[in-house]
Amino acid sequence: MHDRTELWNDLAAQIAVDSIRATTAAGSGHPTSAMSCAHLLAVLFADHLRFDVKDPGYLGNDRFVMSKGHAAPGLYAVLKAVGAYDDDVLLSLRSMGSPLQGHPAPLPDFPWVDVASGSLGQGLAVGLGMALAMRLDGAPGHVWVLLGDSECAEGSVWEAAEATAHHRVGNLTAILDLNRLGQRGETMHAWQADVFRDRAEAYGWTALEIDGHDVQAIDRAYRDATADDRPTLIVARTEKGHGVSFLADHEGWHGKPVPKDQEPQALEELGGIRDVRVTPPSPPEFRTLDLGGAEVGPAPVYGAPVATRKAFGETLAWLAAHRRDLVVLDGEVGNSTYTEDVEKVAPERFVQMFIAEQCMVGVQTGLQALGKTAFAASFGAFLTRAYDQVRMGAVSRADLRLCGSHAGVSIGEDGPSQMALEDLAAFRALHGSTVLYPADGTSTVALTTAMCDLQGISYLRTTREATPILYEVDETFPLGGSKTLAMTDHDDVTLVGAGITVHQCLAAHDILGAEGISARVIDCYSVKPIDGHTLRGALADTRVLVVVEDHRVEGGLGDAVLDALASAGPLEGRVVKIAVTDMPGSGTPEELRAWAGIDAASIAERTRRAVAG
Amino acid sequence: MHDRTELWNDLAAQIAVDSIRATTAAGSGHPTSAMSCAHLLAVLFADHLRFDVKDPGYLGNDRFVMSKGHAAPGLYAVLKAVGAYDDDVLLSLRSMGSPLQGHPAPLPDFPWVDVASGSLGQGLAVGLGMALAMRLDGAPGHVWVLLGDSECAEGSVWEAAEATAHHRVGNLTAILDLNRLGQRGETMHAWQADVFRDRAEAYGWTALEIDGHDVQAIDRAYRDATADDRPTLIVARTEKGHGVSFLADHEGWHGKPVPKDQEPQALEELGGIRDVRVTPPSPPEFRTLDLGGAEVGPAPVYGAPVATRKAFGETLAWLAAHRRDLVVLDGEVGNSTYTEDVEKVAPERFVQMFIAEQCMVGVQTGLQALGKTAFAASFGAFLTRAYDQVRMGAVSRADLRLCGSHAGVSIGEDGPSQMALEDLAAFRALHGSTVLYPADGTSTVALTTAMCDLQGISYLRTTREATPILYEVDETFPLGGSKTLAMTDHDDVTLVGAGITVHQCLAAHDILGAEGISARVIDCYSVKPIDGHTLRGALADTRVLVVVEDHRVEGGLGDAVLDALASAGPLEGRVVKIAVTDMPGSGTPEELRAWAGIDAASIAERTRRAVAG
Repeated sequence: MHDRTELWNDLAAQIAVDSIRATTAAGSGHPTSAMSCAHLLAVLFADHLRFDVKDPGYLGNDRFVMSKGHAAPGLYAVLKAVGAYDDDVLLSLRSMGSPLQGHPAPLPDFPWVDVASGSLGQGLAVGLGMALAMRLDGAPGHVWVLLGDSECAEGSVWEAAEATAHHRVGNLTAILDLNRLGQRGETMHAWQADVFRDRAEAYGWTALEIDGHDVQAIDRAYRDATADDRPTLIVARTEKGHGVSFLADHEGWHGKPVPKDQEPQALEELGGIRDVRVTPPSPPEFRTLDLGGAEVGPAPVYGAPVATRKAFGETLAWLAAHRRDLVVLDGEVGNSTYTEDVEKVAPERFVQMFIAEQCMVGVQTGLQALGKTAFAASFGAFLTRAYDQVRMGAVSRADLRLCGSHAGVSIGEDGPSQMALEDLAAFRALHGSTVLYPADGTSTVALTTAMCDLQGISYLRTTREATPILYEVDETFPLGGSKTLAMTDHDDVTLVGAGITVHQCLAAHDILGAEGISARVIDCYSVKPIDGHTLRGALADTRVLVVVEDHRVEGGLGDAVLDALASAGPLEGRVVKIAVTDMPGSGTPEELRAWAGIDAASIAERTRRAVAG
Repeated sequence: MHDRTELWNDLAAQIAVDSIRATTAAGSGHPTSAMSCAHLLAVLFADHLRFDVKDPGYLGNDRFVMSKGHAAPGLYAVLKAVGAYDDDVLLSLRSMGSPLQGHPAPLPDFPWVDVASGSLGQGLAVGLGMALAMRLDGAPGHVWVLLGDSECAEGSVWEAAEATAHHRVGNLTAILDLNRLGQRGETMHAWQADVFRDRAEAYGWTALEIDGHDVQAIDRAYRDATADDRPTLIVARTEKGHGVSFLADHEGWHGKPVPKDQEPQALEELGGIRDVRVTPPSPPEFRTLDLGGAEVGPAPVYGAPVATRKAFGETLAWLAAHRRDLVVLDGEVGNSTYTEDVEKVAPERFVQMFIAEQCMVGVQTGLQALGKTAFAASFGAFLTRAYDQVRMGAVSRADLRLCGSHAGVSIGEDGPSQMALEDLAAFRALHGSTVLYPADGTSTVALTTAMCDLQGISYLRTTREATPILYEVDETFPLGGSKTLAMTDHDDVTLVGAGITVHQCLAAHDILGAEGISARVIDCYSVKPIDGHTLRGALADTRVLVVVEDHRVEGGLGDAVLDALASAGPLEGRVVKIAVTDMPGSGTPEELRAWAGIDAASIAERTRRAVAG
C-alpha cells in the first residue's frame, strides 16, 4: 500500500504539472480546476477504472465522464499517463486541429472520451445512461462521474441524481470535486460538504465525505463506492490550484493559465516534470449479448386516418420488437407521444424518465455512447427544455433520435404553452441535424424507420390529430426528398407544406382549382435536408411558391425553402411564407389554423393575391 | 372557526364542481388535477392570500403562482368565487377568444395571473423572482406557489428551491399537491410525502406534511408557513379527482373531462352547483418606493477597441446607477459577461443565480411581473439551457432582457461547447422577440439602453474579443435599422454582416476594392426586426448580397435577410449566405474564422465568385 501511495501522489503531481504545462503552452485553459481533482484522477485511473486504453470502445470497460469539462487538462494529463498518447500531443492542447480541445469532445482521433462536456451539469445523466446500457447488456462495468461544485447548482444534476436512485443503479459513483471556488468567487456552499452529503442521502444515495487530496482516503472511498449496491456520491474537499502556493485556494485564477514567467516556480513546487506511467486495471471478460434480430413482423400499414404521433409509436413498437439495440425514453407523456406502445412489447427497453427532459436527453446520450439506438420523445414544446443537452449531443457527435409531438397551433385547446412552434428552428440550427415532418401514417412509418440508421441529431415532428393517408405502403421517402402531390404542366403556383399543412395545401388546391388557378402541391416531409432541386424546379415552372407551416415564421420550413432556393444561384420569382406570426390562445384546431392564416381558405386567399400580384 | 371550516369545504366543493362544469362544457381539460387542490385553493383564497381582486396589479398584494398550470380550471373557479368574473366567463374555458385558456396566461382582459404556466417546473423560480422584487420594494407581500408532484421531477424546481434558501427568502411558501398520479400512471414517489419533506429540509427549507383535503390542517399549515422566516414546503397528500367516486385516485383520468352523461352524478356527489363567494383578505397598506432617477452621469463613450460584452456591462452599470427599477441577474459568469460591473455600483440589485440558467430566467420573469426592468446574462451558448423558460416568458408576455456573450467560433480556444452558434435562430423564432447584435462599443451602449424600454423578449448578442469603434457617440441605432458603412453609386456587391462579421466585411471590402470590385457594406445590428428596406435597396442596386455571420447557416442573419427580401415581393438577384457549416474545435479566433470561411479573405473569395458568376 505504501508503494501505491507514493505512486498515486506522484501521478497526481504529474497531472498537476502537465495541466500547467499544457495550459501555459496554450496560453489559455483551466489548470487550477484540473489541479483540484488531480489526486482523484490519479487514484481512479491507476487502480479503479478498469479499461483498456488500446480499446476504449470495448463495452466491458468501466466508463469515466468528466462532467466538469473545463478540468480537461487533468483528464488529458492522466490519459497521457496511461499511454493514450505522448507528451507532444498533450502540449498541442487547444491548438487548431488538436484533438485536445478546450473542453473534452470525442473525435475519430480522440476516442478516450465518450461524450463532450463543457456545458455544466450534464455528465451525471450521461453516466446514468451508460449505466443503464451496461445493465441492458449484462456488462460488468462501473460508471464514474466527476462533478464540479459550481455545476451542482444546475437542476439537471439533481434530476439525474433522482433518476439514478429511482432506477436502482448501483454501478455508478459520482465524485464531487468540492474546491470551493467557482468562476467568479466562492460557490454557493463553499466547503460545506455536509450540504451535498445530506442532499445526496435525501435523494437515496450513499454519501461519503473525504479529503480529496488524501490518496488513501480516496482509495478507500472508491472501494466502498464500488462495493455499495446504491449509487454513491463521494464529496471530496479539495483546493483549486492545489500544490502551488500562489494558486492554491486563491481567487482570480479560474480559467487562467500560469504565466510563462511563473511556470518554473509552479512546477518546482510540484516536484518538477515527471514521467509516471500507469496501466489501469484490466476490464473483466465480457461477452456482448447476441442482439440478433427477432423475427420481423409486418410494419404498420395505414389506410384510415391516423395521427402521425400514433403511427410513430406503433412503428417504434414494431422496430423495438426486432431491434434489440433499440431503447426508448419517455418524459412521462408516453400516452401522448405513443411511446407507451413500446412499453407493451419491450418493457425492459422502455425507460421512464418522468418529467425531466434534460435528464432524458442526457441518458439518451449515454445510451448511444455505448451503442444503443436510443429514441426519446416528448411534446415538441417541452424538448426546448433540453435544448442545451441536444446541442451538446451534437458536439458529442451523438446519435440522438428525438420525436416532438403536438406540433403547432393544431393542438387546439391546450393553448400556447403546449404548442411546438419554435422546434423546427431550434433543430434545424443544430450541426448535422436531420429534421423530418411526416404528413401521414405511411410516411411516418418510413421516416421513423429511417431514423434508426441516421447519424447525428434527428428530429421527427408529429401531429396530435388524425390526418388522412396520402401514400401507398410501398412509397419510399428518401432523406432530402419531397413528394409532389398535385402537378400539371401549366401550374400557376406551387403550394409547399409539411405535416399538417400538406392537408391544408391540398384543400386549398381544390378551392383554387375550382376558380381556375392550378396549384402544384409539394409535401416537404424532409425539412433538413430539403429537396432544393424540386423546389427550384417548381419556382422556375410556376414563378410563385407559397410555403405554409404550423410553426413560427422564423427559422422553419419557409426559411429552409428560401435557403434552398438562394443556395443554388440567382433568385427569380416570388416566395410567400405563411406561418404563425402572433401568440395563439385556446381554440379548436380548425379555429386556430384559420386564426393563424394557415388553413385552406387562408392559403387560397393569400395564393390568389400572390398569383394576381 | 367552525364557520370557516364549513365555508372552506363549501368553496372547495364549488371549485371541484366548477372545474368539472367548465371542462365538460369545453370538452377537454384537466378537472381531476384541479380537484386534488380544491381545498388548498379554497383556504388560501378565502383566508390567506391578501389581494385586491379589483386591482390585481397592486404591488402590495400577495402573489399566487399556479406552477401546475394544467390545474387551471381550479384557479379559474376560485377566481370566479372571489368575484373576478361571472359564471359565463368560467364556462367559456378553452374556447376561441376566451381569456380562460387551457393553461393560465396573463392577458389584457385576464390580469389575475401574472405569468403563464403549463410547461412544468417553472413556477417556483418565478415565485422567487416575485419575492425578491418585494424585498427590493420593501413590499409586505407573501408569495404562494402551487406545485404538482409530477413536475417535481424537473431539476428546475430544485434549482429554485436551493436559490430560495440561499437568498434567505422567507416570504415564500410552496404547496405541493401530492396527488400520486401523473399523466400516465403513478409518479416516481407516489404518496411518499417524506421524500419531499426530507429533500426540502436538505435544501434548507421548513417542511410540513398535511392531509390536503383537511381544511383545518391546511389553515394551520398556512399560518405556520407565513410565520416562519424560512421558506416552507407544505407537502399535501391529496387525491386526484377527490370527491367523486369514479374519479378519486383512479388512473386514466388525467387531462380528461367528465363526459356529459356522467357529469350529473359527479356534481351530485360533490353536493351540486353552489354560489359561494368569498372576499380574500385585504392587502396591507404599502407605499411604493420612490424610484426617481438618481443623477445621471455620462454614458460610456468608446474610442479605442472594446469588446461588446465589456461595453454591455459598463452600459448596464451606468443604467443601474440611475434606473432603480433595474435588476441584473448573473449565471455565475459575471466576470465574462461583465455584469459584474453592475455588482460594483448596485450590489442590492445584482442577483447571483449561480450556474442555474433556468432559475435565472424564471426569477427574471417573476421580477418583471412586479415591475422590475430585469436583465439576465450568460454565455449565449448556455442560454439554450433556459430556452423553455424564455419560450414561456413569451407566452407570459414577459419583458425579458437577455444578453448572450461569447458569440460564435470567434471565442477561439475554449471550443464548441462554449460557442453560441444557434442563439440567433432560437431567439428569432420566439414570438415578439427583438434580436440585436452590435459590432462596436458605441452601438452596444445605444442598444443596451434601448432594451430597457423594449417589450417582450429582447436578446443582445455580444462578442468576446475587442472590436474597433465604428460609430461616433451621437449616432442613433433605431430598432429595425441598419448602418451602411461603405457605399458608392456603382457598387458591384453588398456585404451584410452583424457583430464580429461587420469587421470582416469591412476588411473584405478593402481587399476587393484593391481588385476593382466595389462592395457596399451593411451593419445589420438589428437582426429582428431587420432593415428590409435597405437590404432590398442594396439587392436592387448591386444584384448580389453576401451575408456573413458567426452562427450556423440555419435560422440566423442569413435567413433573416432572405425573409426580408422575400416578404416584399418578387425576388430578383443573388444572395450568398456564409456561415458556420461544420463542427468547430479549438483554435485562435482568426484560425477558426478562416476555417469557417467567415474571415475577410474567405468573404473576398466567395464574393469574387458570386460577382463573376
